[in-house]
Amino acid sequence: MKIVTPEIFILMSSFSFTSIVQALPATVPFIGPEALERQTGRSIAVRIGANESAFGISPQAEDAMRASVADLCMYNDPENYELKETLAACHRVAENQICISAGVDDLLGLMVRIVVEIGYPVVTTLGSYPTFNYHVNGFGGRLEEVPYVKDRVDLQGLLDRVISTDARLVYLANPDNPMGTWYRGDEIQSFVNALPENALAIVDEAYSDFAPPEASWPVEVNPRVVRMRTFSKAHGLAGARIGYAIAHREVISNLEKVRNHFGVNRVAQAGALASLKDRTFISEVVKKVISGREDYARFAYDLGLQSVLSATNFVCFDMKDSNRARTVLEKLLLRGVFVRMPSQPPQSRCIRVTVGNEEQRELFKKAFQDVLEEIT
Amino acid sequence: MKIVTPEIFILMSSFSFTSIVQALPATVPFIGPEALERQTGRSIAVRIGANESAFGISPQAEDAMRASVADLCMYNDPENYELKETLAACHRVAENQICISAGVDDLLGLMVRIVVEIGYPVVTTLGSYPTFNYHVNGFGGRLEEVPYVKDRVDLQGLLDRVISTDARLVYLANPDNPMGTWYRGDEIQSFVNALPENALAIVDEAYSDFAPPEASWPVEVNPRVVRMRTFSKAHGLAGARIGYAIAHREVISNLEKVRNHFGVNRVAQAGALASLKDRTFISEVVKKVISGREDYARFAYDLGLQSVLSATNFVCFDMKDSNRARTVLEKLLLRGVFVRMPSQPPQSRCIRVTVGNEEQRELFKKAFQDVLEEIT
Repeated sequence: MKIVTPEIFILMSSFSFTSIVQALPATVPFIGPEALERQTGRSIAVRIGANESAFGISPQAEDAMRASVADLCMYNDPENYELKETLAACHRVAENQICISAGVDDLLGLMVRIVVEIGYPVVTTLGSYPTFNYHVNGFGGRLEEVPYVKDRVDLQGLLDRVISTDARLVYLANPDNPMGTWYRGDEIQSFVNALPENALAIVDEAYSDFAPPEASWPVEVNPRVVRMRTFSKAHGLAGARIGYAIAHREVISNLEKVRNHFGVNRVAQAGALASLKDRTFISEVVKKVISGREDYARFAYDLGLQSVLSATNFVCFDMKDSNRARTVLEKLLLRGVFVRMPSQPPQSRCIRVTVGNEEQRELFKKAFQDVLEEIT
Repeated sequence: MKIVTPEIFILMSSFSFTSIVQALPATVPFIGPEALERQTGRSIAVRIGANESAFGISPQAEDAMRASVADLCMYNDPENYELKETLAACHRVAENQICISAGVDDLLGLMVRIVVEIGYPVVTTLGSYPTFNYHVNGFGGRLEEVPYVKDRVDLQGLLDRVISTDARLVYLANPDNPMGTWYRGDEIQSFVNALPENALAIVDEAYSDFAPPEASWPVEVNPRVVRMRTFSKAHGLAGARIGYAIAHREVISNLEKVRNHFGVNRVAQAGALASLKDRTFISEVVKKVISGREDYARFAYDLGLQSVLSATNFVCFDMKDSNRARTVLEKLLLRGVFVRMPSQPPQSRCIRVTVGNEEQRELFKKAFQDVLEEIT
């Protein structure tokens, strides 16, 4: 039933929102696959566009979550104590160096909020995670965007831009999204160590579970880095909304001053805790992702296409041209295959395809080959 | 395993957070019952302090949520389309007059964020919902707090304060929390209609399911009111984090510019949708709450105590004195009974007791009588 807005709801010409909000465009960081289905009138059969896990949830986590459904009458523990204690032990840090929240998106917003005053510069990579940009704009920050170099984040370029703009906050994802490229831990560490004393780096490690061991680095190194981890990828809990930041206790105590203390869903927390303990399951998922990633790379090679070497659960297929990539993406969607593409040239010459399970990969390959034939 | 913060994590003396955050105290809106258990070393047997539902979740909602656990690998639809469509039909408004988010707490923060500039006055009732104050402080607003009159929100006082301070935002809950008192819908409507054109009212209707029909009023009346509804109370989904705002489409479109689009847990949304459709269950819950509320009132009367007439799922028992109320609360906690109390005198003369199920009420009554005997 559609109801027309009543006439009495006149324009609110006499009311003013904040100057920041007034200046914001009506955009969203991502259009969801459900919205694409509604727009196109076609259902998506192969959902490999949002880097969701195709390899399920730990059976122990599923059991824990089903059991906790009956407890949803109760608010979740606002201190997230049990999970925080477990994470602290995992990472060998103190509990006051961890902030758990309803996903990394939420934490990115909180970080911007506690650091960025109106008009302050914030450094990121041009074409990097749009939700971070959404929050920077949303809190009135000024984005300073450094282009990729050969599809990798430009560490020296980010550092130079932090120094030249006197930015307090710089964001990078390692491994990177949307390109899938990565740096060794010691390279990230050198970058962080070289930052001015008045700057903080957010290192988004959403995809770190899929990266080679050399990408990791010790947690307790530098007070000016905030590491973000999620349960949305390897743990397969994207729809649960749970992630955490590991940082200096002063960063955490400032996040605690503004975060929504009751914001984490009780089922999500039960699932995250159980999933953390099921290491066998997670390492199986990682193996399947790596194998699927190699499958994609071989498939691209066999087609005579380049693909970007990835340390994540997705692979970028190089279409050589943004228009061509866009056409492929649209034609895949019409065949029920949902993928995404980087937003900025020259990275937008690629389509970004999440590593699906075997069935999804076969369906993708078939549709992709059909599309390639159609457009040549 | 406790790990001491490494020495290398020196104080971040050279780093500055925003001036708002620097000025914020390290407080939380509420201390959770789990934290109280950890502090006291005693477990809580009767959890009737946070106005959680003691009457369960719709079996249809539970089934829907258990079924959706397996889908948690997928992000939730960021447009929350299906639930939004259903809510729009329920309230006979357009979809663009509804914003769904991860609970009313989240929505209150978003409302403050889109309306309040640093230093702007925001009007509320002294001792009203602390999470709203938390957000006002968190975004640098200036609280203008109007005392209760006879344990009711002072509508004329709020209006006068909005006018005298030129406030853009005023908050009230109807029925009120923590007192449980309420106004008729036409009284709230008159209040909203009398507001200056540059002011918005948030009417938090978290407890409206438990209120008499006279408390309700048509939705499409005034563009300067934002009504908040939650699934945490009658629907028994407190731990799920889902609520919504009904407002003028311009308010909603501004919320859409800053909200976390992927913030709602997939299980929560499935539960809310199923629960909405199970009207029989909700009306049974409401009946049980009303009956339990009357049970509390009779019990207070029989003890020679006053209780505040409530239109919610809790009752305030009048202890005549804040110190006495505090003592009763602490002694109840030592007996495993968790209740809360209003923060400000003279309302802090009361303890606020959630309507439990029959077993919880009997346990509370026994413990309460024991405490009263002990302190007289």
